[in-house]
Amino acid sequence: MIRIPRSELEQFCADIFINLNIPEEEAWDSAKILVAADARGIPSHGVAHLARYTAGIRSGKIKGAVVPTILKETPLSRTIDAEGAMGMSLSRKCMDWVIEKALRQGAGFCAVRNSNHFGIAGYYTEMAARQGCIGMAFCNTAALGVPTYARKPWFGTNPIAFAAPGEKDDLFSLDMATTTVTRGRIEVAAREGEKLHPSWAVGKNGLSTDDPVSLLDDMLYLRGGGLLPLGGEGDAGYKGFGLAVMVDILSALLSGGTFGEEVRDSVETSARVCHFFMAIDIKMFRNLADFKADMSRMLKSIRKMEPAEGKERVLYAGLRHEETEAENNRLGIPLSDKTWEALQKEKNLPK
Amino acid sequence: MIRIPRSELEQFCADIFINLNIPEEEAWDSAKILVAADARGIPSHGVAHLARYTAGIRSGKIKGAVVPTILKETPLSRTIDAEGAMGMSLSRKCMDWVIEKALRQGAGFCAVRNSNHFGIAGYYTEMAARQGCIGMAFCNTAALGVPTYARKPWFGTNPIAFAAPGEKDDLFSLDMATTTVTRGRIEVAAREGEKLHPSWAVGKNGLSTDDPVSLLDDMLYLRGGGLLPLGGEGDAGYKGFGLAVMVDILSALLSGGTFGEEVRDSVETSARVCHFFMAIDIKMFRNLADFKADMSRMLKSIRKMEPAEGKERVLYAGLRHEETEAENNRLGIPLSDKTWEALQKEKNLPK
Repeated sequence: MIRIPRSELEQFCADIFINLNIPEEEAWDSAKILVAADARGIPSHGVAHLARYTAGIRSGKIKGAVVPTILKETPLSRTIDAEGAMGMSLSRKCMDWVIEKALRQGAGFCAVRNSNHFGIAGYYTEMAARQGCIGMAFCNTAALGVPTYARKPWFGTNPIAFAAPGEKDDLFSLDMATTTVTRGRIEVAAREGEKLHPSWAVGKNGLSTDDPVSLLDDMLYLRGGGLLPLGGEGDAGYKGFGLAVMVDILSALLSGGTFGEEVRDSVETSARVCHFFMAIDIKMFRNLADFKADMSRMLKSIRKMEPAEGKERVLYAGLRHEETEAENNRLGIPLSDKTWEALQKEKNLPK
Repeated sequence: MIRIPRSELEQFCADIFINLNIPEEEAWDSAKILVAADARGIPSHGVAHLARYTAGIRSGKIKGAVVPTILKETPLSRTIDAEGAMGMSLSRKCMDWVIEKALRQGAGFCAVRNSNHFGIAGYYTEMAARQGCIGMAFCNTAALGVPTYARKPWFGTNPIAFAAPGEKDDLFSLDMATTTVTRGRIEVAAREGEKLHPSWAVGKNGLSTDDPVSLLDDMLYLRGGGLLPLGGEGDAGYKGFGLAVMVDILSALLSGGTFGEEVRDSVETSARVCHFFMAIDIKMFRNLADFKADMSRMLKSIRKMEPAEGKERVLYAGLRHEETEAENNRLGIPLSDKTWEALQKEKNLPK
């Protein structure tokens, strides 16, 4: 493991994108959002996946300097066809737009189709929280999750993010997949020879499986099997599956994009996914300072709870990421040797 | 079990409220929303709990003919102090208001504090869906759920509801608690001598427990222990706990109401809870007919999936409730003999 100063790592990644003729602003947005994931301790969405984006750029599936089409615009909303733009930079701009609408008119919404992966959803919602808004972000993703009592994947890990501000640096920031675990976790189990937890996945017969190796094989060859929704097998999973469908409705059905089992990653790059961004101005309901004071009181009341036997403290969404980010800003962003080598190789690749 | 025609049961329940000097409109709203729960096959929120509302009315904690205070109003939003009004009737009116705002201006929001239980959250979101909107509703409830790595309850079952319309009667309607199960399910386990599933609850030491009897006793005497968030014990529960906190933020923090562990049922009646209602006009993003056609295509693509081994069909949120409601509208609303006896007794009680 090595540590790279945050700004240096951002520069490094931005240069890689710029070398591929991605305009500076888009390159920097993408670099910053990828590095933010590593900074917060979410390497599954960080620079280790940069090659996935550069492969998409090389194949032409992810495009720089695209002018997205505004399909519809109202005082509160935009519906956008991203035309295959860089997902992270486009999303940052969409979130800026909905925040501006929220601060002027109370709320802003943006539904986007035909985009590309946008990194950590929480990046966008926290932009809103820092401006005194409640932020929400959603994205549909390649179908890997199996609906209640089905056998084959129909929905993605479809993240939901929600953030709201407290006083000073206090922040509540939820960023969650609607499946119990991601495919990455199944791959780890396969490598380590672990058995799967019964609430993680079903095999090709639609029943819970503990065998990661056959599962990954069946998923690869589309024989069935896949991730379970949050809640687990059977009836208990209707909540996670319901939340995943909600994400598809907000992101893909409002924008007229691709949804459900039709969302598939290709060999070369990520699926053309859909997003939904939303900001609500807190001042529309209440004095912002009072809201923030209540938020901080709420978060403190959770932090000060007596922890369970053998545990050090009680956690809420965002707390650990916030602390990790503060530490990594000080010490540098930690990267595995493998990731750092791959990044250096990436830099030296021909266009 | 007996079956009562829907309109007769509504009249019966409305009369009980009217006899307690509740104004006709409020009595009818409450009766209709309670009966709707039984009609949809959700008796846990139906007329079996009518006595809880009448007890609240008798004790003065739930009030008829109250004029709620509008704390703040903007073109898109209202912040309301319900002043202890009948939760169901007030909520119906708030939802009507946010739908009207959505149809005129794109979106409507209403945050309510100091209210009372509002029955099934899905009733309100489906009102929005029937008018071509996406509806969302949230409510915080008495603290029974234990945060990640804590020992004591801090959050409620805090329901989240979301509904969107398809063509004709097609509807997606998610209405879910953010805990894995409700206290009612633990009570059933205690009665039946069942062991608890490890993802359902923790004991007073904060670790998963399978003993419903000691758990209920510890919860009653506030010694600790309670329901686990959706996702289960430990890190896995951060999603359900995060969603529950989101509900508290939207309903209680935006309205300036009571949140977290301070939300407690009293001996006489339900806690003074907070709500958040929201409607988004689908036409703001896209032609409504196109959206509905895509919704129906989506729901059909789920319904037609091959079911898991031993299962009859694949399910999505709302499908079973919709079918049950159609059947009960035809055959009459099913009530247990015990519930029907209690209702008749209730009718003959002095004021």
